[in-house]
Amino acid sequence: MKNIPMAKKDLSAQEFIDGIISGNRMLLSRAITLIESTKQEHQDLAQEIIEGCLPHSGNSIRIGITGVPGVGKSTFIEAFGNYVIDEQDRSLAVLAVDPSSSKTRGSILGDKTRMETLSHHPKAYIRPTPTSGSLGGVARSTRETITLCEAAGFDTILIETVGVGQSETAVHSMVDFFLLLMLAGAGDELQGIKRGIMEMADSIVINKADSGNEDAAKRAMAEYKNALHLFPPTESGWIPKVATCSAFHNKGIPDVWGIVDEFVRHTKTKGYFEQQRKEQANYWLNESINQELHQAFYGDPTLKSKLESFRIQVQEGEISSYKAAKDLMKEFLGKQKA
Amino acid sequence: MKNIPMAKKDLSAQEFIDGIISGNRMLLSRAITLIESTKQEHQDLAQEIIEGCLPHSGNSIRIGITGVPGVGKSTFIEAFGNYVIDEQDRSLAVLAVDPSSSKTRGSILGDKTRMETLSHHPKAYIRPTPTSGSLGGVARSTRETITLCEAAGFDTILIETVGVGQSETAVHSMVDFFLLLMLAGAGDELQGIKRGIMEMADSIVINKADSGNEDAAKRAMAEYKNALHLFPPTESGWIPKVATCSAFHNKGIPDVWGIVDEFVRHTKTKGYFEQQRKEQANYWLNESINQELHQAFYGDPTLKSKLESFRIQVQEGEISSYKAAKDLMKEFLGKQKA
Repeated sequence: MKNIPMAKKDLSAQEFIDGIISGNRMLLSRAITLIESTKQEHQDLAQEIIEGCLPHSGNSIRIGITGVPGVGKSTFIEAFGNYVIDEQDRSLAVLAVDPSSSKTRGSILGDKTRMETLSHHPKAYIRPTPTSGSLGGVARSTRETITLCEAAGFDTILIETVGVGQSETAVHSMVDFFLLLMLAGAGDELQGIKRGIMEMADSIVINKADSGNEDAAKRAMAEYKNALHLFPPTESGWIPKVATCSAFHNKGIPDVWGIVDEFVRHTKTKGYFEQQRKEQANYWLNESINQELHQAFYGDPTLKSKLESFRIQVQEGEISSYKAAKDLMKEFLGKQKA
Repeated sequence: MKNIPMAKKDLSAQEFIDGIISGNRMLLSRAITLIESTKQEHQDLAQEIIEGCLPHSGNSIRIGITGVPGVGKSTFIEAFGNYVIDEQDRSLAVLAVDPSSSKTRGSILGDKTRMETLSHHPKAYIRPTPTSGSLGGVARSTRETITLCEAAGFDTILIETVGVGQSETAVHSMVDFFLLLMLAGAGDELQGIKRGIMEMADSIVINKADSGNEDAAKRAMAEYKNALHLFPPTESGWIPKVATCSAFHNKGIPDVWGIVDEFVRHTKTKGYFEQQRKEQANYWLNESINQELHQAFYGDPTLKSKLESFRIQVQEGEISSYKAAKDLMKEFLGKQKA
């Protein structure tokens, strides 16, 4: 946690809530900082603010964007964001889920110079990924940040992540629409994309269709279209759309928005939009329960060494996983009861 | 559970273990029946037998086979099994994971008439899927059955499932090689295949390449080859192979075995074969711990109504999933301590 100074006077949860709902960005930022804080008192206050903002949240389109480093995500978000605000009269919050960033190269949204125009736009709000924390922690604080941004009136939420880890699954389960940015030349560039991610995509957009690369991008588009048609459709019947663009030259961006718009209308007509949000709420409730159960079990220091010795025995085929689990559980639940 | 009569004289676990290791099929079958039994005394005896067989297990190739109903799985297993036994001098156990079968149409392997030759082969052992139980339960008993079959000397294990549910994920995590059977004409037939299953496949085999359908099968093969090349490779660098066959006319079966053989040599050379088995052991240990934790939590009758009311509130956006989970956990762990 950066040591961001709080106000001289401590505000109540209600003051935060009222401020956020009225669109006060300073209070929005401070509340997000509370969400990301590891201090218990900050957490408690944050939780109260979130519960108060919940009834005012939900009225947005949540878009996830992923793609390997170098695909041009920041440039794309700059172009797409400006289009959405200026041409579609929307307001935009940009968040990020990238738990690896702290170890390797700093927050992916930290370098706001790559989103020069957008970061100064009065209708845009850019919040870098928290600089520390596990995926579970970052996913949670991002979901909570979505709630606050929606309560503050933002009707379009972009959540950026990188196509190399498990963060895609987390982001996919908190957005309405999942966009995969790619490059033409389906060879080496693809190696960084994890298996399974392509099947999450509601759209694949091939970026950098410029500077003589236009034909390769078109060929890649045709190939992906063919490939996606071979794969089973989504539950809603939506067939993932493929497009090309040049974010740098600001070309093809309206088409991408057109796909998002078509998707939202398609899924809202058939009730899938709301259904997916309910399933996501369910998923996160189950995940939260899992996390709490795991924290209680795996956080138990007296179980740790026993678990590790069992793990080796199971890997070596000396005992079955079921017997190991039963023995561990007996100790865990016995202790809880004691 | 069918009421299979046990021996007049009750056998000890050691007698079962010795019998199974010496290849006694009657004792193998009876031990599997114990595994599938819901009676606690049977379960306890089964667990002892499994632990005793574990050191003698592991020396096999485990192959998972999936595909939608109508793709010709039974016919394929009949042809493939006979080839593997007669031409490759191997022994074969055929198991199934199909938790839905009890509700709909009985065990998929129940109809042994579709595997007439194989079911009478002295080097084959066919065990129908248990006729009841949850996926978790069936997956567990199948894994335990693999252990016993391997201890009994079977060096090839086929595990059949249907391409419509979550059973694929379970089977995929207990086999070395995962085979997806398909039909030519990548349209309606595909609808039954769940998203994500294609990415699990180490090979896609297009069946029924006969009776004038040969060209369509070849075209489908080319299309899948192209599509699979667009997708990221597996960790071991193995690129899923595509083939055609006609199980009914016994054509192309050696090619399919050739793919399995090549896969095993590829992954064994690079250490991925053993690594994957260790990862699977780890996965099942974690799954077992999860199951035990869930059983303790979700099986708690006093938490049930509270959980359901929280679930609705979370779906309606009235409280956050984190707050709901925290509140539930306080009650659960508090009670355990009380």
